[in-house]
Amino acid sequence: MAHAKPFVAIIVGSRSDVDVVAKGGELLEQLGVTHELRVLSAHRAPDLLEEYVNGALERGAKVFICAAGLAAHLPGVVASKTTLPVIGLPMAGNLAGGLDALLSIVQMPKGVPVATVGVGQAENAALLAAQMLGLSDPAVAQAVADHRADARRQIAEDPANQAPD
Amino acid sequence: MAHAKPFVAIIVGSRSDVDVVAKGGELLEQLGVTHELRVLSAHRAPDLLEEYVNGALERGAKVFICAAGLAAHLPGVVASKTTLPVIGLPMAGNLAGGLDALLSIVQMPKGVPVATVGVGQAENAALLAAQMLGLSDPAVAQAVADHRADARRQIAEDPANQAPD
Amino acid sequence: MAHAKPFVAIIVGSRSDVDVVAKGGELLEQLGVTHELRVLSAHRAPDLLEEYVNGALERGAKVFICAAGLAAHLPGVVASKTTLPVIGLPMAGNLAGGLDALLSIVQMPKGVPVATVGVGQAENAALLAAQMLGLSDPAVAQAVADHRADARRQIAEDPANQAPD
Amino acid sequence: MAHAKPFVAIIVGSRSDVDVVAKGGELLEQLGVTHELRVLSAHRAPDLLEEYVNGALERGAKVFICAAGLAAHLPGVVASKTTLPVIGLPMAGNLAGGLDALLSIVQMPKGVPVATVGVGQAENAALLAAQMLGLSDPAVAQAVADHRADARRQIAEDPANQAPD
Amino acid sequence: MAHAKPFVAIIVGSRSDVDVVAKGGELLEQLGVTHELRVLSAHRAPDLLEEYVNGALERGAKVFICAAGLAAHLPGVVASKTTLPVIGLPMAGNLAGGLDALLSIVQMPKGVPVATVGVGQAENAALLAAQMLGLSDPAVAQAVADHRADARRQIAEDPANQAPD
Amino acid sequence: MAHAKPFVAIIVGSRSDVDVVAKGGELLEQLGVTHELRVLSAHRAPDLLEEYVNGALERGAKVFICAAGLAAHLPGVVASKTTLPVIGLPMAGNLAGGLDALLSIVQMPKGVPVATVGVGQAENAALLAAQMLGLSDPAVAQAVADHRADARRQIAEDPANQAPD
Amino acid sequence: MAHAKPFVAIIVGSRSDVDVVAKGGELLEQLGVTHELRVLSAHRAPDLLEEYVNGALERGAKVFICAAGLAAHLPGVVASKTTLPVIGLPMAGNLAGGLDALLSIVQMPKGVPVATVGVGQAENAALLAAQMLGLSDPAVAQAVADHRADARRQIAEDPANQAPD
Amino acid sequence: MAHAKPFVAIIVGSRSDVDVVAKGGELLEQLGVTHELRVLSAHRAPDLLEEYVNGALERGAKVFICAAGLAAHLPGVVASKTTLPVIGLPMAGNLAGGLDALLSIVQMPKGVPVATVGVGQAENAALLAAQMLGLSDPAVAQAVADHRADARRQIAEDPANQAPD
Repeated sequence: MAHAKPFVAIIVGSRSDVDVVAKGGELLEQLGVTHELRVLSAHRAPDLLEEYVNGALERGAKVFICAAGLAAHLPGVVASKTTLPVIGLPMAGNLAGGLDALLSIVQMPKGVPVATVGVGQAENAALLAAQMLGLSDPAVAQAVADHRADARRQIAEDPANQAPD
Repeated sequence: MAHAKPFVAIIVGSRSDVDVVAKGGELLEQLGVTHELRVLSAHRAPDLLEEYVNGALERGAKVFICAAGLAAHLPGVVASKTTLPVIGLPMAGNLAGGLDALLSIVQMPKGVPVATVGVGQAENAALLAAQMLGLSDPAVAQAVADHRADARRQIAEDPANQAPD
Repeated sequence: MAHAKPFVAIIVGSRSDVDVVAKGGELLEQLGVTHELRVLSAHRAPDLLEEYVNGALERGAKVFICAAGLAAHLPGVVASKTTLPVIGLPMAGNLAGGLDALLSIVQMPKGVPVATVGVGQAENAALLAAQMLGLSDPAVAQAVADHRADARRQIAEDPANQAPD
Repeated sequence: MAHAKPFVAIIVGSRSDVDVVAKGGELLEQLGVTHELRVLSAHRAPDLLEEYVNGALERGAKVFICAAGLAAHLPGVVASKTTLPVIGLPMAGNLAGGLDALLSIVQMPKGVPVATVGVGQAENAALLAAQMLGLSDPAVAQAVADHRADARRQIAEDPANQAPD
Repeated sequence: MAHAKPFVAIIVGSRSDVDVVAKGGELLEQLGVTHELRVLSAHRAPDLLEEYVNGALERGAKVFICAAGLAAHLPGVVASKTTLPVIGLPMAGNLAGGLDALLSIVQMPKGVPVATVGVGQAENAALLAAQMLGLSDPAVAQAVADHRADARRQIAEDPANQAPD
Repeated sequence: MAHAKPFVAIIVGSRSDVDVVAKGGELLEQLGVTHELRVLSAHRAPDLLEEYVNGALERGAKVFICAAGLAAHLPGVVASKTTLPVIGLPMAGNLAGGLDALLSIVQMPKGVPVATVGVGQAENAALLAAQMLGLSDPAVAQAVADHRADARRQIAEDPANQAPD
Repeated sequence: MAHAKPFVAIIVGSRSDVDVVAKGGELLEQLGVTHELRVLSAHRAPDLLEEYVNGALERGAKVFICAAGLAAHLPGVVASKTTLPVIGLPMAGNLAGGLDALLSIVQMPKGVPVATVGVGQAENAALLAAQMLGLSDPAVAQAVADHRADARRQIAEDPANQAPD
Repeated sequence: MAHAKPFVAIIVGSRSDVDVVAKGGELLEQLGVTHELRVLSAHRAPDLLEEYVNGALERGAKVFICAAGLAAHLPGVVASKTTLPVIGLPMAGNLAGGLDALLSIVQMPKGVPVATVGVGQAENAALLAAQMLGLSDPAVAQAVADHRADARRQIAEDPANQAPD
């Protein structure tokens, strides 16, 4: 598989979360990182999930982003099938605004980490994936740095900050 | 597999929880229900878990009890591999006394239930399994009813309740 | 009562929750499981509840599903009156999105389990009941397996998963 | 039952909580209020509980104090059987230090209140019962007022408060 | 003050909560219990609160109902000024649906109980006050019992419960 | 910098919170306290934040108010750059209504306090700043006292409190 | 009272918390700030509390530190009696490690702020008081700055930081 | 800095957490990854922290692991100074077993992710760092895979799993 093209595999646990998570995919594009997005379930279709993960690994996936709500097992299940980095993205539900998904993702036991970002923070999941790829891809690293610089510029230009001291 | 003997498969997610969970196994024995107990991990050895679940199904497992702490995915992962009943037993950790394990087990998404009992309540997991089997096994149903009657008798005989009114 | 027909007894603690819980009843019908639905209260009409539970047991109830919010005692109270399986369905309220009902249902003391499903997950309560009945009714077991296969198929056919790899 | 002697009925849900709850009984004695203490369970022995509640009502119980932990249904179940005041005393467990018992007791639905005191505050349960009885028994009311005055005196005499200003 | 007429003093901590709490006052009227309702603050006008409490005690207040949200000190502050029963009614805010107000009211230290009801349960606060007064006023006790019987009747007449068994 | 004019520096962590926080600024004006408001980020523009803090210190800032949501590090980061008082104002998000921001602000480690006010309480942040400045500015202290008196007057004039006793 | 000597008044709500809180007093001494420490209760001795607060104000108290656990009303009650700054110090109890005290202190309603520090952080309460006094007392401000510098020095000298890069 | 040697920079926010975090460092060594460990504070010594981060970047740090408890700002502050990946390791304290540190680390706002692992899971932080470096270092990737295989082997050899089926 030496010639496989590196990409980020985004897996969303529920169709209803696709729109939120897709913003992370758009940001990856802006950062010059290829990605795939699939809607898969660790519980209702574990074989399809495993099949996809194995195929993605063969085609060159380097990082997984897994978004899920409630008892959000998706990131952990993917992490059990690969030792590549897996990023967990908790989606908000009714129970305390997503505390269930957050704890279900971040509290992984010894030996199988999931790199967890904040509830609903799809763009941070994308940035984290890009930071990881940027460790060996200077163009991506530069794109992430530029994105941070843009955020800084937005703040510098905030109307509130134009007041004379 | 028509001749396979029915039993309860108990899976513990961590060696350190075996002693607590084994009490559930002992209660199953008292209730006349055969069981197996294994220490397996949804995250560190998903293949061994799948292999065991498939074998247990072939040998006649009828109900699964899965005990886990932290991001307790074990019950949900087993529930994804069978449509037999799966009982989830959350184990207490430091975070709010097991709230993480409880939410990770009980908040399963639509389509794949896990029958969750209270944090650390191994005997209730066993009773629930026996109640399920008792639906078609009158001897087990009677054993569960007797166990309840024993609990009632203990209360009737509590020293505090011997006071004259 | 040997000739009584087996069915699932669904008890809803509050009229306002009937619509949500009724979805579980519909799913039971699809799975070929007969059910009754009643609106009863452990607190405001304990005698009516007891009367109904006793009558349902005589008529052949095999599993109870009890849905309640707030200090959701309904499942536990029913569980105190039978050693058949009782499924607890917590309904969401304002306090942390249903954390009160969840803890009031799942944290049952030693000796009297309630099989708890996720907050508001009426269909999972139905599936769990069917799984229990399926232990001795192959048609129901098959219907549950088919339902899982349908869920799997829906995922396989999700537009996101039709992308060429 | 016009000649029945008024008293407070204390019901403890678990033998392991008797020592803590008994402090409330001792305080009632000091305040000149008669009480009974029983160890009963809403779940494992509902008939014994009902029998006791009915007997206590006949013998002149005026207020119930019900102490329970975990899914603490005891106070609510007693409240469903009488319209006399019921005081709920949550006992601490592992889950967030008793949050489960607190919510299971205090979040009673419309129509059936339970007068809840703080987690483990057996003496406050006793004081509240005495305050209720003091509404029609001046001696008890005075005893409660004296108890408060004692608490005030202790503070006045605290070594830290003897420092010259 | 021997001739003062007994009544329940309802104190609301914020104008915005008056409508919810007033339902408790209406229920008291139905139960034949006189009440006053004031909007007062333990923090912004402690002197007005103290003045009102003292005046109410002189005019014959027998029970206080204090409704407050956030850091809900009102019930505890009133409880510090009288040894009559004080009922605390937590009002929901944004933080976890009123967990702040609930804990601020119920977790009173040793010596000064507040009889806490569920978040936003104004009618339960009224019922609890009537239960207390009913200890020495048979007409009120009967009205509370009738109210419970009405609730039971509503359940008996629920459409869901008219189905033939 | 002896001639610098004393003022309160308000820093908002996100443009979306400016309207809520600005109410605190308006109150400061009413209390006769000069303030500046900036939108800055501890994370996206730490250099701009440091530059602003240093400049504000030079121009005579005496107290900082820092408003932030989520992992609200802004107040702590400012507190690390000055030993002047820093007031932390948590902004509500989805997670349990702002529990994340509250804990991220108030739980500062030994040595670097942040004076935390309630979630979303911009006016309390302003009042606290004015109380601090009032320690050495009698006019401001008087304005704060007058503001409290106004709040008391509003309560005295509440329609509910005009009822004849 | 123009000649009264400025000092910090520390009020502890419970004798059992004196040792922890006294560390804050010791730190104030080191910072050159005079203080008094009293054990008083908002609930059991409101008159003694009011008497002390009024006396302290007359003798020159400038800042109050109020430490309390459970339904920690002490800081709010003191804040209702003065418009000087009041610092609230939540003390840990069993319920989620002090979450009750934290919410009871920090969630003050509009108009009456309490400057809250972390659970059990007596030294941070002292530092915050000194920061406030330092606004008009350069010696205290310098002492606070020196204390911070000491903390920095400790870190610089940590063995882990002596490793060659 | 082209010749700088790649390493992981571990920063611990408090001396008291060094022993727990050092286990992560030991695991990195086993995985063939060089690391440095420093004890630094975002709040008490922000300049030393910045100085260290800048130096580490120059010397070839590729990933940061930042461990902190309470209002755990350390990971976020480091993440604000670099666009390399930052791993946040929450340390348990009293408040709900580390919920404060977890939320303070994981709930980072848009634009500045922190890759969060479970409370106290130092070894998972190390594994995650190694997974990131393994993206471009096959030896490290292999070491991580071997470590997973070891964990699987331990499970395979667990005494409970040697029972004949």
